[in-house]
Amino acid sequence: MNFLEERIIKDGIVKHGNVLKVDSFLNHQIDVQVMEQIAQEIHRRFVDRPINKVLTIETSGIPIAYAVARRFDVPMVIARKAASVNLEGETYVAEMESCSGRTESRVIVSKKYLNESDRVLIVDDFLANGYTLQGLISLVEAAEASVEGLGIVVEKGYQEGGYRIRNLGYRLESLAVIESMDADTGEIVFRDASLT
Amino acid sequence: MNFLEERIIKDGIVKHGNVLKVDSFLNHQIDVQVMEQIAQEIHRRFVDRPINKVLTIETSGIPIAYAVARRFDVPMVIARKAASVNLEGETYVAEMESCSGRTESRVIVSKKYLNESDRVLIVDDFLANGYTLQGLISLVEAAEASVEGLGIVVEKGYQEGGYRIRNLGYRLESLAVIESMDADTGEIVFRDASLT
Repeated sequence: MNFLEERIIKDGIVKHGNVLKVDSFLNHQIDVQVMEQIAQEIHRRFVDRPINKVLTIETSGIPIAYAVARRFDVPMVIARKAASVNLEGETYVAEMESCSGRTESRVIVSKKYLNESDRVLIVDDFLANGYTLQGLISLVEAAEASVEGLGIVVEKGYQEGGYRIRNLGYRLESLAVIESMDADTGEIVFRDASLT
Repeated sequence: MNFLEERIIKDGIVKHGNVLKVDSFLNHQIDVQVMEQIAQEIHRRFVDRPINKVLTIETSGIPIAYAVARRFDVPMVIARKAASVNLEGETYVAEMESCSGRTESRVIVSKKYLNESDRVLIVDDFLANGYTLQGLISLVEAAEASVEGLGIVVEKGYQEGGYRIRNLGYRLESLAVIESMDADTGEIVFRDASLT
């Protein structure tokens, strides 16, 4: 079990409705030391790629992407959800599929900060159905930039997002992959890292 | 002129409606090196204080607060705007004054992550009328924690927020204070640092 899986077991809380709360160290309160370990590991996994930009989406992905971008010493770009957009000028817009009729179904980035010379590492905290990541991939491709990889902190391995994105040929690395979790018992089972 | 003022002159864009766009290095795209310089300077100005937590508000404050928290080696907490709140359990809520009838007029933090033992440095990107900072101060005081200081990247010195908060006795440090800016000429005048 790696440092992140240990921390999730210790402080993560499984809630009904397929929710894993990691508010105490990853989302609402940020444990800087854990975040630096996460960034170090994502950097290690993609250091062989010629990455010149890190892309994430507001809000929870921001501290992770910042810590990763600092390790690569490259700029980071924060894609906006439609609801909060205050961007001027030309933008790339990707529709995100949604199975739940959520109000936020678009992701937007200014054309000024993503272009065909960019080699992009996409970073986010959670991967479940993969709609958000597919939205970010669409932005990169709309800019004719290249997706060098995707670094995720926690993947819900029992949902289809990870399978789908890997199946499209993208290099996707998740530091912890949840095989199953149970809100009644609180139990969390991780997938053997060798199987991701 | 310090590094930040130089960068604002170089890349900041003054827009009508009292808007300074710093999307290229501080908000939408983040220049990691500039952010690290900002964090180093905020750390330097408050290193004499016994800070054990950094508090900011989503979204633009997050990378700055993270970089500052890393320097202090303390956790950071992200206060949520009401519109995006998905917090469970007991929360502190502060109403923010609003002169414009904006929809987001509350700021919220979980009681789990702010308590009377906390010595808090509040960090944000912009200070104008000060309503957001006053909301954050209210949260800290509701938790009976102490406000050790406030570190701001860009203060609009011609608005009343900075005066009001300093007048309440808080130690407020802004790395760049704009004395005036002109959307027609693009000119930005900074206040002499010795006068802040």
